[in-house]
Amino acid sequence: MTAEIICVGTELLLGNIVNTNAAFISCELAGVGISCFYQTVVGDNEERLLSTVGNALDRSDIIILSGGLGPTKDDLTKETVARAMGLSLIRDTHTEQRIKAYFEKKGVTPSDNIWKQCDIPEGANVIDNDNGTAPGLIINKDGHHVILLPGVPMEMKWLWNNGVRKYLSSLSSEVIVSTTVKICGIGESKVETMISDIIENQTNPTIAPYCKPCEVHVRVTAKAENEKECRKLIKPVVRELKNRFGEAVYGTGEEDTLEKAVVDLLKANDLTVTTAESCTGGLIAARLVNVPGVSDFLKTALVTYSNKAKRKFLQVKKQTINKYSVISKEVALEMVKGAAALTKADVAVAVTGNAGPEASGDKPVGRVCIACQVCGSCEVIELNLVGDREKIRENAVSHALILMRECILKYYSKKTFGNG
Amino acid sequence: MTAEIICVGTELLLGNIVNTNAAFISCELAGVGISCFYQTVVGDNEERLLSTVGNALDRSDIIILSGGLGPTKDDLTKETVARAMGLSLIRDTHTEQRIKAYFEKKGVTPSDNIWKQCDIPEGANVIDNDNGTAPGLIINKDGHHVILLPGVPMEMKWLWNNGVRKYLSSLSSEVIVSTTVKICGIGESKVETMISDIIENQTNPTIAPYCKPCEVHVRVTAKAENEKECRKLIKPVVRELKNRFGEAVYGTGEEDTLEKAVVDLLKANDLTVTTAESCTGGLIAARLVNVPGVSDFLKTALVTYSNKAKRKFLQVKKQTINKYSVISKEVALEMVKGAAALTKADVAVAVTGNAGPEASGDKPVGRVCIACQVCGSCEVIELNLVGDREKIRENAVSHALILMRECILKYYSKKTFGNG
Repeated sequence: MTAEIICVGTELLLGNIVNTNAAFISCELAGVGISCFYQTVVGDNEERLLSTVGNALDRSDIIILSGGLGPTKDDLTKETVARAMGLSLIRDTHTEQRIKAYFEKKGVTPSDNIWKQCDIPEGANVIDNDNGTAPGLIINKDGHHVILLPGVPMEMKWLWNNGVRKYLSSLSSEVIVSTTVKICGIGESKVETMISDIIENQTNPTIAPYCKPCEVHVRVTAKAENEKECRKLIKPVVRELKNRFGEAVYGTGEEDTLEKAVVDLLKANDLTVTTAESCTGGLIAARLVNVPGVSDFLKTALVTYSNKAKRKFLQVKKQTINKYSVISKEVALEMVKGAAALTKADVAVAVTGNAGPEASGDKPVGRVCIACQVCGSCEVIELNLVGDREKIRENAVSHALILMRECILKYYSKKTFGNG
Repeated sequence: MTAEIICVGTELLLGNIVNTNAAFISCELAGVGISCFYQTVVGDNEERLLSTVGNALDRSDIIILSGGLGPTKDDLTKETVARAMGLSLIRDTHTEQRIKAYFEKKGVTPSDNIWKQCDIPEGANVIDNDNGTAPGLIINKDGHHVILLPGVPMEMKWLWNNGVRKYLSSLSSEVIVSTTVKICGIGESKVETMISDIIENQTNPTIAPYCKPCEVHVRVTAKAENEKECRKLIKPVVRELKNRFGEAVYGTGEEDTLEKAVVDLLKANDLTVTTAESCTGGLIAARLVNVPGVSDFLKTALVTYSNKAKRKFLQVKKQTINKYSVISKEVALEMVKGAAALTKADVAVAVTGNAGPEASGDKPVGRVCIACQVCGSCEVIELNLVGDREKIRENAVSHALILMRECILKYYSKKTFGNG
């Protein structure tokens, strides 16, 4: 049983709105175990819509359409689908009554064209729309299931939750469940090389790597009769991935983020944290503050953009800046030590770098130094990042979070297992 | 000349990500006067991708593909397009050199599979990708223009701005030019009411309002033979909008942002700036640091998340916190004064609030107080923002930037025109 989605609306083709309906419907289809092979967007144009629907009937069992069910002349999804399927439109008195009551309740007289929304393809099942006038429609003919929904996201979702999901679940005997193994600090191609044997031999579950800034997410997706069976298929693959990537795996939950992984480590070891940022301008602090409850650990954070601020607040020495330049491992180390001393935080991270657009002295755009201190132990790295100002800063922030995580893990493994 | 868009990626069909690329590309196509009739999403599956590309070649002159250009086995867009168009792949030595240099600069050894990205369909034009490894490719064959771009939005957009837009403009005889009038501090429905007469009588140029957090952007779009004619049509409409919205208009350029408007005011008046943030956790500083050259004005910024940090660094009084609570106008005012005193900055902004997820004492989620000081003059506002943690913080940041802009403008208008 395969499905496809057709979203109808010129505003989508003009790029005025982003197609969140397609993402919602796709996600829902996966949830009930139905594979979705295509999403199409087509404008309010009868000829092109007719050919799109015809194409879909040729290749898919289930077709979900959204948009074009309104009262205006532009709205022709229902008429076109009926034509493609050889059905005529008939007046649905139940919907007529509902729409009458809807307007009476609002104390508004509807315009004449509204009654067009009461016409339905013969034999279609109606799902009442409590959030608007156009009903949801399900047509089951010649082995095809064609579902028509309004384009307004709230109405579409309401109808999905109040009829469509149940209908589709009854068609599918399988469910799909995914787990994402989130890996940091290893590049996409290296990750793929390390699991090429698993990728090559995949059947069920399937596995696929996705690249994020400084991270790779490996999605493991299983299909089975029920969720429990899916989890059983997923478990050994996730275990194997964790074996291969070790501590580089920072999470497998939907809500897991790099910043949450860092904050979780702070929590687990009861550590306070501070940041001293230059080119990242507060973004590391902002990422940490994404995590609810961080206020127990992050007391103070500093953006020391100027050399003067680095000297005044962090006690960076003038001669260190003069000797090594402000973008140097040496300055990053003095910054991190100064920040920890000033705020008495257990963990500190400091960044100094050039995010562009112009070279800073002999330091090229993208040169970034990051230092991290955990309970007195320091590490420092120097990076040459590529991209524009925004990308360099985003990557620098991710590298800083990864370094913090590594330093905390290292400090505690040493403490626990002795210094090897 | 008609176009269609094909986005390749199983993650789109699973609904894991929303297709913002299609919206961006559609918007851009409209901008160069090319009609886009279809958007299709198809997974990383050769057979289905081949039939989708074949379909597109039958009905469209221009095909834009994004996604599936990566180094992994999953990535097969280039291979499939070449097959559909009867082209073979050849090694592009220029791209090979660029990718070598890219990794050398990063100091990283690429994995073997990366070199697959140097193979291009014979005769294709290469657009160098400064933000990644996969190049953009333009194939012009048998009256078709097929453009291949990576799926990562930042890389895709960079290639669009650095080659694709120019190429497509050269294909179209009409041009579309837009100017966006950017308005802050006035709600969308008020903006719409204030220009309803212009919206009703629009033909060419058309005008449309778009809602952003705390901003409304009114896009004025003209179609004509050349850019000069378009500008002539746009100019009087922009002038009228500026008349109606006065100082609420902060810019009309593509690169204009709220933070740039603030930094431009700092520059114009030779003012230094600092921030003291609590619930926004560094995001205001990070927005300001978005603007290149801000290092001349932003010396230091602070995140004082805990009460202790507010007292230690900003001299907020214990009794003020006890009497009014930490989320109060009174504390915001003490924070802003303390920050200005500590850093000797001319302009300071301070934020204290509750971004959720839980109420903080008697202060509900969304209660945010923002104070701004310009050369000794203070203003403070209290807001009740709605939404989740992320949305509340984002809105608080926008409100802070708007308040900074207003306070600087007010201070200088008073200074110039006398205190009215």
